Amino acid sequence: MIEDKNQQRTQLSDLGEFGLIEHLTKNFKIKQTSTIKSIGDDAAILDFKNKKVVVTTDLLVESVHFDLSYVPLKHLGYKAVVVNLSDVYAMNATATQVTVSIAVSNRFPLEALEDLYAGIETAANIYNIDVVGGDTTSSTTGLLISITAIGEVENDVEVYRSGANPSDLLVVTGDLGGAYMGLQVLEREKEVYKVNSNNQPDLEPYSYIIERQLKPEARKDIVKLLKDLELKPTAMIDISDGLSSEILHICKQSKVGCDIYEEKIPLDPQVISTCEEFNIDSTTVALNGGEDYELLFTISQDDYSKIKANPNFSIIGHIKEEGAGTHLVTRADTRIPIKAQGWKNFNA
Amino acid sequence: MIEDKNQQRTQLSDLGEFGLIEHLTKNFKIKQTSTIKSIGDDAAILDFKNKKVVVTTDLLVESVHFDLSYVPLKHLGYKAVVVNLSDVYAMNATATQVTVSIAVSNRFPLEALEDLYAGIETAANIYNIDVVGGDTTSSTTGLLISITAIGEVENDVEVYRSGANPSDLLVVTGDLGGAYMGLQVLEREKEVYKVNSNNQPDLEPYSYIIERQLKPEARKDIVKLLKDLELKPTAMIDISDGLSSEILHICKQSKVGCDIYEEKIPLDPQVISTCEEFNIDSTTVALNGGEDYELLFTISQDDYSKIKANPNFSIIGHIKEEGAGTHLVTRADTRIPIKAQGWKNFNA
Repeated sequence: MIEDKNQQRTQLSDLGEFGLIEHLTKNFKIKQTSTIKSIGDDAAILDFKNKKVVVTTDLLVESVHFDLSYVPLKHLGYKAVVVNLSDVYAMNATATQVTVSIAVSNRFPLEALEDLYAGIETAANIYNIDVVGGDTTSSTTGLLISITAIGEVENDVEVYRSGANPSDLLVVTGDLGGAYMGLQVLEREKEVYKVNSNNQPDLEPYSYIIERQLKPEARKDIVKLLKDLELKPTAMIDISDGLSSEILHICKQSKVGCDIYEEKIPLDPQVISTCEEFNIDSTTVALNGGEDYELLFTISQDDYSKIKANPNFSIIGHIKEEGAGTHLVTRADTRIPIKAQGWKNFNA
Repeated sequence: MIEDKNQQRTQLSDLGEFGLIEHLTKNFKIKQTSTIKSIGDDAAILDFKNKKVVVTTDLLVESVHFDLSYVPLKHLGYKAVVVNLSDVYAMNATATQVTVSIAVSNRFPLEALEDLYAGIETAANIYNIDVVGGDTTSSTTGLLISITAIGEVENDVEVYRSGANPSDLLVVTGDLGGAYMGLQVLEREKEVYKVNSNNQPDLEPYSYIIERQLKPEARKDIVKLLKDLELKPTAMIDISDGLSSEILHICKQSKVGCDIYEEKIPLDPQVISTCEEFNIDSTTVALNGGEDYELLFTISQDDYSKIKANPNFSIIGHIKEEGAGTHLVTRADTRIPIKAQGWKNFNA
């Protein structure tokens, strides 16, 4: 293969701040009726009528949250939007708009930002949201993305972390641990590449878990499904930091305890086989891996029939009184206290 | 004076991400009735009834937007909030909430972030807004602050950049150029300090312009005043990048031209004297300096009597047909085309 040495590189300084925002967002179409005024004024103007408004924000920093040696910029733009939308869905709400701010060093040409924004635009189209604002600026090192996601929710439809009651069922969507194991594979291939850059890794056996890491999806479909099932969870949270951490958030804020069952934790076969290959315990990965962006929620036992046998849902345990504590019941039937590992990224 | 060498330094890694957010915001009081759920869930829940929602976002990067060698962290936190609120007021709206995300390197101890958040809290109290969300994470270098400000506005009260009409009057609040000249003084003192760190500069003659740079205020009072005067501007923008740049935004988006009069541009005596000292043209500073956070707006001539003789307002020119172009009429009565200098911070 002949490498194209003449790839276009347009310096960001050729455009200036105003030109850059206009250039990057000029093809973005407005899709939401609530978007009255988008990019181009001092602020966006939105009209949610009498619905409530949901707001959440996240900051992604190069070398802390992502590694551009194996994350394509388009995927990064997509993921940056999706992880924010996940927080909106975790309120049982509909995501409607985002603002996107980026700080970039001069090592990024315009074409790199176009790739990033192509991913942002793809996510906006798939999730039916508008990009209504943002800021672009230079940084002294690296790339940083700050996204604020906005959503809407009818009165009394929103679900907090604090509503779980003893005897409620603990339910999780999809499967867990994939994103973390995908990261392990990518990190291993990065090390191999350092030693031999001609190596072409066969990533096919890891396709699912790598996609979970590089191009995660937020569970917009679950919010719709819950509505169709006429099922309002008592508490809900998205799984960004690992199941352990999220369960503890629900238990702490709801002032309850819980038992979860190791054998009930949903794992994809590719997660299990990759865990065996890496000699890592798959339960530990599901509990502490994070970045799965599934939803964890609690429902009254009266609603059990609404989710029974639905392949989207796994019942992994139940809520207990606060004094009972928070435990994992292992396959060997021993009870282990659940501890948050979370994502302590200040431990650098 | 004896320097305290035992100043407390708590490592951020001692707290972890969850502990940090809780710690920094635990004293923040909720003030707005529209804030239903603040920090502590996947997202904030806000209720604006049937008012429209205003959203704007800004990113401030160390060494690009601020220099911690002369900007105290408390002032930085205050300013970071205020500059965002200014964009909400520029829509003729009321600011109600902000989210605050920060990325910091390990060189910052907890106490530094407490100072930063003390400034954020002070701004929140003075401007009567709630801090309803945010994210804290580590960065590889320096400090970065991303703020999204949210506001509310009654139907048909919002003012865009695009509504100016020929013969409208161009009005500016306060005075211009102070923030830029304050920065020049601070930069000069930094150079002096490098040469002789025992030098104690006398900054008293520059107190107003230094305050304009370090602790700017947003014109919340003007939004209220306009309401009291029953005056709705035809177009409005805040002056963050300099008068030239903002006038051109209004003219471009309103598809009009304008004449502004050099002699009408409001300057504080301290700006004039400091410009003389630095041998800089004060008109150039007012046109291109930026960071004044005053409001620039246009009104119908029919509304002239409402602002006449009001010390908050200076009429600096008038709107013309688009074909007439955009000009500065100098004291010598020559006409110079207005050009945007703006804030091209990619020119690093």
